Amino acid sequence: MTAGVPPGGEFAAIDRLMRRLPGPPAGEVWIGDDAAVVGPAGAQTLLTTDMSIAGVHADLRLMGLDDLGWRAVAAAVSDIAAMGGRATHVLVAVAGPPSTDLDALYEGVAQSVEAHGCRVVGGDLSNAPQVVVVVAVTGVVGEGPGPVLRGGARAGDHLFVTGPLGGSAAGLRILRGLAAPGRPPAAASAENPLVRAHRRPRARLAEGTAARRSGATAMIDVSDGLAADLGRLAAASGVGFSLGDVPVAGGATIEEALGGGEDYELVFAAPDDDAVRRGFDAAGLAVPIVLGECTADRDQRQWAGTVLAPSGWEHRFR
Amino acid sequence: MTAGVPPGGEFAAIDRLMRRLPGPPAGEVWIGDDAAVVGPAGAQTLLTTDMSIAGVHADLRLMGLDDLGWRAVAAAVSDIAAMGGRATHVLVAVAGPPSTDLDALYEGVAQSVEAHGCRVVGGDLSNAPQVVVVVAVTGVVGEGPGPVLRGGARAGDHLFVTGPLGGSAAGLRILRGLAAPGRPPAAASAENPLVRAHRRPRARLAEGTAARRSGATAMIDVSDGLAADLGRLAAASGVGFSLGDVPVAGGATIEEALGGGEDYELVFAAPDDDAVRRGFDAAGLAVPIVLGECTADRDQRQWAGTVLAPSGWEHRFR
Repeated sequence: MTAGVPPGGEFAAIDRLMRRLPGPPAGEVWIGDDAAVVGPAGAQTLLTTDMSIAGVHADLRLMGLDDLGWRAVAAAVSDIAAMGGRATHVLVAVAGPPSTDLDALYEGVAQSVEAHGCRVVGGDLSNAPQVVVVVAVTGVVGEGPGPVLRGGARAGDHLFVTGPLGGSAAGLRILRGLAAPGRPPAAASAENPLVRAHRRPRARLAEGTAARRSGATAMIDVSDGLAADLGRLAAASGVGFSLGDVPVAGGATIEEALGGGEDYELVFAAPDDDAVRRGFDAAGLAVPIVLGECTADRDQRQWAGTVLAPSGWEHRFR
Repeated sequence: MTAGVPPGGEFAAIDRLMRRLPGPPAGEVWIGDDAAVVGPAGAQTLLTTDMSIAGVHADLRLMGLDDLGWRAVAAAVSDIAAMGGRATHVLVAVAGPPSTDLDALYEGVAQSVEAHGCRVVGGDLSNAPQVVVVVAVTGVVGEGPGPVLRGGARAGDHLFVTGPLGGSAAGLRILRGLAAPGRPPAAASAENPLVRAHRRPRARLAEGTAARRSGATAMIDVSDGLAADLGRLAAASGVGFSLGDVPVAGGATIEEALGGGEDYELVFAAPDDDAVRRGFDAAGLAVPIVLGECTADRDQRQWAGTVLAPSGWEHRFR
């Protein structure tokens, strides 16, 4: 339910659609968060969909159809992770030209649903000039607090990220045969961790659940880049932010960490950093990295003494 | 979850995927019916997805983007109707070139979800060379018997259809400026009921529920044509069929009624025609039309003394 690259850069049509349609009843969340939340409290269902289009979201000269299938599932499941939920059922709609190697694509889908602990229960198959994979995922929220939305962060909350950033963007750079400024080109081996981060990203389901149970007030997945996605969390919450060090994946640049999307790490806000440390520890997960804090000035977008402009970074790697 | 026109006419890859993936637990239905059935008995959820691609499923020279949006929702909701369910929540993934009139497309989506009594709760938006609309729908099964699958028909069951067939195919012919053999060309007015049947089909939700409550043993929606879809129901049930008169929409031909898809009428089997008549009557619905009956010879595909070959008709109008 992250909105890739819309036609004409137009998000306005979605806003108009939202105004045109009836809104959710109390306790439900529809358009505007990582996933929709429907159903009564205690038995809520999470719903999300995500499109992966060859030539737009993925370059099939740089990855296989199996990688495209894997990524399509991971990207959609990540929206469930960002609510603190568990993915349950998956629908996979596939279109492509007659020459498409469906076995390769479905093999990547099968591996990804297995890795993410969910099940393919249906789908659709059609002809199209280019390969399109659209994954819809249902999820549930386990014991503990309800789903974590984007809009609950308060001034003073700490900001965390579940891991270093920029790996996927660095992997893409390597696959394109480019070196980072001032560094020798890296080999585009399939085993290179950055190449793997680009081709086979993992949704952070366990981390999302741990964050929810550790008092997270707001959460989002890094699909379009830290600057863009943290900007969305801050805007939805009506807070600003001030960041210190941003953790950079080994071999990636700081620009890739700030602007590169598709890492699928989770960024979240929580008031009690001890509770977060204990919660992740108890779940056997690496303790998340402190990025900075939420501030009362909703226009503040501070990183290392400069302004972190979402739109500037957002399109740099897309 | 009807499989439009697969790449290379290949359904084999889906079969291989099904064998590669774990199967459903007892009481659930995954790939292979109109919609998946998940969750415990009494609280089951229906899940389905359906792709509508400009140039494949719809000709945008013959309909507006609003019609495409309407049809995409109706086609997916029809899979819920064919289980005897009620559609609840809808996810709409849209891709298209930057020039796409999203407001028109979303207006059709909004009208269609309203007409079908469900709600848009999320979606995705992206760039693509051609317009793609992928709708995922969740549904529930109301009081009474559980969802009606394709595979429950028995020899001796009567076969019913909820209305005359061929309207959508006839509307497409009119829009293409073609006359039926031996008839004068019809005017391609937007108010022409056949043109409307093609551009604005309705999923038969109330009819599906009435059929489920009237003892239906198997049901499918006519999305690819009566011959193709009834053939699927018969194959899944392990029965043959013998048809008498096939009801033809006014202005359509018998070929359009047998082979034209996208009418979204429901075909179902039920042992007790009195119960069906009473059930539809009590629901205030037109009594369904008797098509014929299911036979014990699973190879029998009889219509008016000839063999109704699914593959022959299936591709005639696609």
